[in-house]
Amino acid sequence: MAETDQALPLSDQLAAMNLTDTVEKHAFSDRVLIRSIVGRPDGGAGLAGQRVRAGGWVKTGREQGKGTFAFLELNDGSCPASLQVIVDAGLAVLSKLVATGTCVVVDGILKVPPEGTRQKIELRVEKVVSVGEVDPAKYPIPKTKLTLEFLRDHLHLRARTNTIAAIARIRNALAFATHSFFQEHNFLYVHTPILTTSDCEGAGEMFQVTTLISESEKLEKELIKNPPPSEVDIEAARQVVSERGEAVKQLKAAKASKSEITASVAELNKAKENLSKLEERSKLKPGIPKKDGKIDYTQDFFARQAFLTVSGQLQVETYACAVSNVYTFGPTFRAEHSHTSRHLAEFWMVEPEITFADLQDDMNCAEAYVKYMCNWLLDRCLDDMLFMAKSYDKGCIDRLRMVASIPFVRISYTEAVELLEEAVRGGKKFENEVKWGIDLASEHERYLTEVKFQKPVIVYNYPKGIKAFYMRLNDDLKTVAAMDVLVPKVGELIGGSQREERYEVIRERILEVGLPLEPYEWYLDLRRYGTVKHCGFGLGFERMILFATGIENIRDVIPFPRYPGRADL
Amino acid sequence: MAETDQALPLSDQLAAMNLTDTVEKHAFSDRVLIRSIVGRPDGGAGLAGQRVRAGGWVKTGREQGKGTFAFLELNDGSCPASLQVIVDAGLAVLSKLVATGTCVVVDGILKVPPEGTRQKIELRVEKVVSVGEVDPAKYPIPKTKLTLEFLRDHLHLRARTNTIAAIARIRNALAFATHSFFQEHNFLYVHTPILTTSDCEGAGEMFQVTTLISESEKLEKELIKNPPPSEVDIEAARQVVSERGEAVKQLKAAKASKSEITASVAELNKAKENLSKLEERSKLKPGIPKKDGKIDYTQDFFARQAFLTVSGQLQVETYACAVSNVYTFGPTFRAEHSHTSRHLAEFWMVEPEITFADLQDDMNCAEAYVKYMCNWLLDRCLDDMLFMAKSYDKGCIDRLRMVASIPFVRISYTEAVELLEEAVRGGKKFENEVKWGIDLASEHERYLTEVKFQKPVIVYNYPKGIKAFYMRLNDDLKTVAAMDVLVPKVGELIGGSQREERYEVIRERILEVGLPLEPYEWYLDLRRYGTVKHCGFGLGFERMILFATGIENIRDVIPFPRYPGRADL
Repeated sequence: MAETDQALPLSDQLAAMNLTDTVEKHAFSDRVLIRSIVGRPDGGAGLAGQRVRAGGWVKTGREQGKGTFAFLELNDGSCPASLQVIVDAGLAVLSKLVATGTCVVVDGILKVPPEGTRQKIELRVEKVVSVGEVDPAKYPIPKTKLTLEFLRDHLHLRARTNTIAAIARIRNALAFATHSFFQEHNFLYVHTPILTTSDCEGAGEMFQVTTLISESEKLEKELIKNPPPSEVDIEAARQVVSERGEAVKQLKAAKASKSEITASVAELNKAKENLSKLEERSKLKPGIPKKDGKIDYTQDFFARQAFLTVSGQLQVETYACAVSNVYTFGPTFRAEHSHTSRHLAEFWMVEPEITFADLQDDMNCAEAYVKYMCNWLLDRCLDDMLFMAKSYDKGCIDRLRMVASIPFVRISYTEAVELLEEAVRGGKKFENEVKWGIDLASEHERYLTEVKFQKPVIVYNYPKGIKAFYMRLNDDLKTVAAMDVLVPKVGELIGGSQREERYEVIRERILEVGLPLEPYEWYLDLRRYGTVKHCGFGLGFERMILFATGIENIRDVIPFPRYPGRADL
Repeated sequence: MAETDQALPLSDQLAAMNLTDTVEKHAFSDRVLIRSIVGRPDGGAGLAGQRVRAGGWVKTGREQGKGTFAFLELNDGSCPASLQVIVDAGLAVLSKLVATGTCVVVDGILKVPPEGTRQKIELRVEKVVSVGEVDPAKYPIPKTKLTLEFLRDHLHLRARTNTIAAIARIRNALAFATHSFFQEHNFLYVHTPILTTSDCEGAGEMFQVTTLISESEKLEKELIKNPPPSEVDIEAARQVVSERGEAVKQLKAAKASKSEITASVAELNKAKENLSKLEERSKLKPGIPKKDGKIDYTQDFFARQAFLTVSGQLQVETYACAVSNVYTFGPTFRAEHSHTSRHLAEFWMVEPEITFADLQDDMNCAEAYVKYMCNWLLDRCLDDMLFMAKSYDKGCIDRLRMVASIPFVRISYTEAVELLEEAVRGGKKFENEVKWGIDLASEHERYLTEVKFQKPVIVYNYPKGIKAFYMRLNDDLKTVAAMDVLVPKVGELIGGSQREERYEVIRERILEVGLPLEPYEWYLDLRRYGTVKHCGFGLGFERMILFATGIENIRDVIPFPRYPGRADL
């Protein structure tokens, strides 16, 4: 703060910073957020004298002054910074407060600390309201340098670390930025299904969803408890039926009383009912139901085979072709046995679909969206970004600034291949051969964005042979109107295309790639009836977080990572 | 518009309404949104003279003036209202434009229509840019009154109807309202997992997720193509190994040349390799892998049994106990064979978790959230709400206003039961018996909110016997700090509780309800280390849409409904 400001009365200084000198309690708690104190531009100094209740977990604590008081760094997750709290020995057993991870709620008065300390404000405790203790000898994540790998084995506690908490705030910010961007641009959020009977790309590698196994296990248990009747049991029951039938006949022949006959008929009916129940149960067989040697999916929950979605695109197109611009943002799944740092079995995707729009519009939207997210983080998560820059990737903030401000390079696939070939001629070594027609490998993408241009690159118009059937065939009949957005640090961040809206062309393409038409009849209907020019793309949400934070492993940027062999909690 | 206004120049009139006299094209398209014309307070009148490109689908079309021109009602899904478009016969074959469902993109000039027409503005077409035709004889959803049941058999086209489009906009609005509410109140959005190995309530009825079936089918096919080796094949291979071994021995004994011996050893190794491959393949068995008579889940994708989540609550608590206030908003699943109008196999839930907060805070948050959503719809979706009021539920707007403005009634479960008993004494008939200890049935809930109070009611402190183990035990040791929010039209909208934060108590409760401790050890850790007072609730998102719109069947308020026997697309 400049010296002239210091001369102003406090209230005027605060007004100049647009700050009040009171701190609001949280709407649904009796505490205040620590961010509303230490997250202020003045570091909380303007709040000196205020009485507040604060709650959080101890990051570090230490007894001082021969045990007469304790310093606690209290963090409640609302921001990376902690509040310094001072507790006198008379208020609590200090040794029970200082362990890392202890949860403490305190009432106190905010004071400006002595000159020369880092903090701008500290809380002098008047009352310790509650303590959730930690036995440091048993605490699985004590205050030592823990690796991200180690933390993956403690998913339920890892959000208590500075890194995972900062990632959680950045992830939250990017999610809300996503919604804000599309809402501002008049896109409707559509919840596409997780359970699906369509396979978007015909690519396989889907998780199956079923109740057949649990139903058959239930039946198996039931049959052990109540074994099915044997042939002897059934024969005996048949015998009873015939005896009872005989009895009725004899009573009728003997002209017995009506009540006698009625009773006898009732007995006969009971015997018949028993027989049919036994016959029914004798048909029950343990194991998954089969028909003609194959699993009988008509007995599954949805009366057919069902899977977890790999993309909501095809389904969301039904809305794009009805209410125009839409987007999905939800979990998607791949049952791939990939053990890389870039793949998850469950991950989140953002998939907008833009109607009355072509590939240029698609690229414009993708670029605007990525820039919007970068600006959002710079504006609202700078404290967390500073933490990531300090701890993981010193270039991450500059990268955000660069991407937010520089126009993305746009080159055709053919140009991209030429540039790569030029690089090879210049001595650059790639593991994968470069020639027109190949799918660009990660090394090629990263060369283009990190070495050649050192900025985001959009590659468009790919050979049709390496792309999906629904991408619009260009007039050259060799390429399709697809585009990928490549960014430094992660390579491909976005993949998209203009969709083939011509009925005859897309029908041919389905057959050409060897897919059956029948499962796509509904998709073809969108082209049969009132077809419309449209395009869209998919952004892997975790990739965006990797790009923003510089974290290396995708398992660390999703709260509960799922990958081969692991689905903890 | 008052007469005095008419006297003002147009620009001043527009300024008074905060309107400009130009219409902006969409950021990622060359068209304008129809809402930006007809959705203006002046109905678009102020835009007369503007040249625009508009695109949309024909709601109704008719040729007029002996085929010299056509009227089209064009709708692009951006609002319920359509734009009236007039096309002269010279510009296109009019018969190809007028069918309902036709997609039309046109350039034209906005004009004020003749006096006495309903529209405030219409588009005089200068050029027909593109047409996506419809053969009305084949179109599955022609312009007749279609029932919602019928539309459920045409999921891919139903968003083209006024009703499903209005629901889509309302659903979108409620989703963004949800994010806005929690973001404004400093909650972090956390993506809890869809795939889980935990069963939140121990209630069963979960969908299983597996790759065992597809892997075994793949293997089966492979074994048909390449049958596994027989015992004879293996014996033959063993014979070869032994012969090659003998040959090596003989060459060595005969002191053959080094190259001869090396070649012979290579032959031996090849034979050994072949044998071990055959032995390996002979172990392959079609069918799902088993061990000790049970399915061997160590061979499944996650090396254990995995399911679709029924709730993200337990997992999100790990974040609540680390970074304080959080919420989830995602799909959840129940494999229940319910064929009611209130149940889906896949539905979306909003689950906030409030830290340093108790049951009162929980109720305050739930009430504030519901009111916020009601106000959001009244402020931003009034046109769609007017449509719902006109077409489905004339009371729906008043209901939103009432819920937004009136404080919710709060009564304990015990009081609720007394009120129900009083009603029974007064002659009210319920199908389910009323006495302390029962779980309130839907008829009881609706009596309280629709008849007794005629406003939202929060019932709290339920008997522990009918509630989940994680709800906080009250001091009476008979009830738990649970609460349900009941609203007119749907009954239970929200269920929540303060969570049991005391380690010993929750451990006892788990055992008391007969659950094993082991799967909950991670959940117990949250209480072992730095435990904190917290609470939360779940809102069934589709229930909220039913409440808002008055639609009767939950299958009509989610884009792609999943229920027993059906998972279209």
